[in-house]
Amino acid sequence: MAKPASRPLVYVADEPDGDPTQALTPERIKAASRRHPGLFDKFRFAYGADPKRADPKHLAEAEIVLGVAFDPLTLRAQAPKLRWIQSLNAGVEKLAPKLDPSFLLTNASGLHGPKGGEFGLTCMLLLNHAVQRFVGSQRRHEWTPVYTTPIEGKTAVIAGAGALGQAVARQAKRHRMKTIGINTSGKPVAGFDRVVKAKDMARILPSADFLVVTLPITRATENLIDRKAIDLLPAHCGIVNLGRARVMDYAAMAERLRAGTLAGAVLDVFDPEPLPKDSPLWDVPNLIASPHAGVDDGSVYVARGLDIFAENLRRYLGKRKLKNLVDLAQGY
Amino acid sequence: MAKPASRPLVYVADEPDGDPTQALTPERIKAASRRHPGLFDKFRFAYGADPKRADPKHLAEAEIVLGVAFDPLTLRAQAPKLRWIQSLNAGVEKLAPKLDPSFLLTNASGLHGPKGGEFGLTCMLLLNHAVQRFVGSQRRHEWTPVYTTPIEGKTAVIAGAGALGQAVARQAKRHRMKTIGINTSGKPVAGFDRVVKAKDMARILPSADFLVVTLPITRATENLIDRKAIDLLPAHCGIVNLGRARVMDYAAMAERLRAGTLAGAVLDVFDPEPLPKDSPLWDVPNLIASPHAGVDDGSVYVARGLDIFAENLRRYLGKRKLKNLVDLAQGY
Repeated sequence: MAKPASRPLVYVADEPDGDPTQALTPERIKAASRRHPGLFDKFRFAYGADPKRADPKHLAEAEIVLGVAFDPLTLRAQAPKLRWIQSLNAGVEKLAPKLDPSFLLTNASGLHGPKGGEFGLTCMLLLNHAVQRFVGSQRRHEWTPVYTTPIEGKTAVIAGAGALGQAVARQAKRHRMKTIGINTSGKPVAGFDRVVKAKDMARILPSADFLVVTLPITRATENLIDRKAIDLLPAHCGIVNLGRARVMDYAAMAERLRAGTLAGAVLDVFDPEPLPKDSPLWDVPNLIASPHAGVDDGSVYVARGLDIFAENLRRYLGKRKLKNLVDLAQGY
Repeated sequence: MAKPASRPLVYVADEPDGDPTQALTPERIKAASRRHPGLFDKFRFAYGADPKRADPKHLAEAEIVLGVAFDPLTLRAQAPKLRWIQSLNAGVEKLAPKLDPSFLLTNASGLHGPKGGEFGLTCMLLLNHAVQRFVGSQRRHEWTPVYTTPIEGKTAVIAGAGALGQAVARQAKRHRMKTIGINTSGKPVAGFDRVVKAKDMARILPSADFLVVTLPITRATENLIDRKAIDLLPAHCGIVNLGRARVMDYAAMAERLRAGTLAGAVLDVFDPEPLPKDSPLWDVPNLIASPHAGVDDGSVYVARGLDIFAENLRRYLGKRKLKNLVDLAQGY
């Protein structure tokens, strides 16, 4: 075993004010260490006393930061030895554009699959069965039945055919839905009946019974689902956004929901978050606001994230290419 | 072909004020007749001008009533030739106890399977993913994330293992849930890992992640899920009722929901219906009120019901035992 002083320092930067189920606690890191015997001892771990502020003493030594709580500028100024940041988020849009390209950034893409796919299906099913209308009527004490039909054979257009999009497609296939993916290349992806290039999406949006957005926010996806795209969706279409808010023109969507020319929406992501108290989005008819909890699994999220981190610790020691490496130029 | 005068008269009694998707229109009966060539011509069909009132002229001649809009006492007094009533509902609790035992009553059990099973799954999934809490927080413009876990491996206790209960169990199995049925006999039923007798349900209720009620209302099921049964459910349990309201003690359930000691409920059935404007149930926290539309399929309900009716017309002509015959003493 390496001498203590030569062991690389991992600085654990827990998200401040996060949910306890998502916390990077010493206990959870100890549990991960037990799942990967002999690995974590090859590193030193340090925790800042104040999770909101980087501890300069630790930063000065850190080769690795686990978590994303610190400002990229602080990292650049105060962490001369830093080489790699492992985020436990899938979306790293706040970090990636500001990082020095010499840093390695890895994310937690793939963690959201089992829970996120199921949540995506849940949203389609509840929209299919008009639950968004029932909860609206319920507020007004109104009894307004809507006789819906099974989801089998209906079409899910899934914008983003990455890990989360594929998980949603797999769940849709369990219910014999048609699945059309949208990505950059238009190349086939498992679980999708068809994949079309983003630039050709106007051709398929009119056939969407559901539009499910699973895209990260990048220069290429910002406002990709713009007013023109939204206007191509049929009136019975339901919208789900599990990706990032700014991929989609929420104002255009809200207009159609208010006009009654879209069936409904379940949005799990907003900009900013938390959604401000006075946001008009809270009260848009047939819109269900989910507080960015749809794709994170309360029981296993941190544990699975730490397993990705452990795999990367192994690769880091072996000087091999890290898993889930983010292309800083592309942003995902 | 039989002479016109000898053809039995079918009096079509459409539900007044019903949803158009559920209406027994002459067009739909004509379409059913085309699906069963040579059968419907062996009968005469009559429609009352006022669907709310039986037309005495038609009733006097009717051997068969299709639909359930007429009062049983009217039928007894004014329909001397009446032998058989085909209802297009699965639950016939209003009709069965008042009918003369010499009448044949058939229902539409089995029609609700594909849509009803999917709706049952939808309710479990949305409860599993805390949607009932999100819509409550949304009313107060509050951002309160809850990090849930996938439904796989969780336990659905399904009270009622008939056609609808089996359909819910099949959907639950698609998501690798455990399924425990409750029925009278405790005998095994397809799709259920286990079936227990109603009198033994106290043993399994504490293990329910979800309790889904699919029971008709009869003397045996009235208040079957009473306060004692509800108090055995664990705090994380979600309740779904797709059967009949009076099977369950809603007041006891509402108390636990208000106390925050049950995860949530989706109720599709109430007593009376429509749920009155001033019912306290509208505002119970974590309760979603669905306006008795959950199990009826808007696209195919009437068509499938008329196909059951056609099969029974064939049996009636052949003097064979009718399908879906209701035991008037048992009430289902």
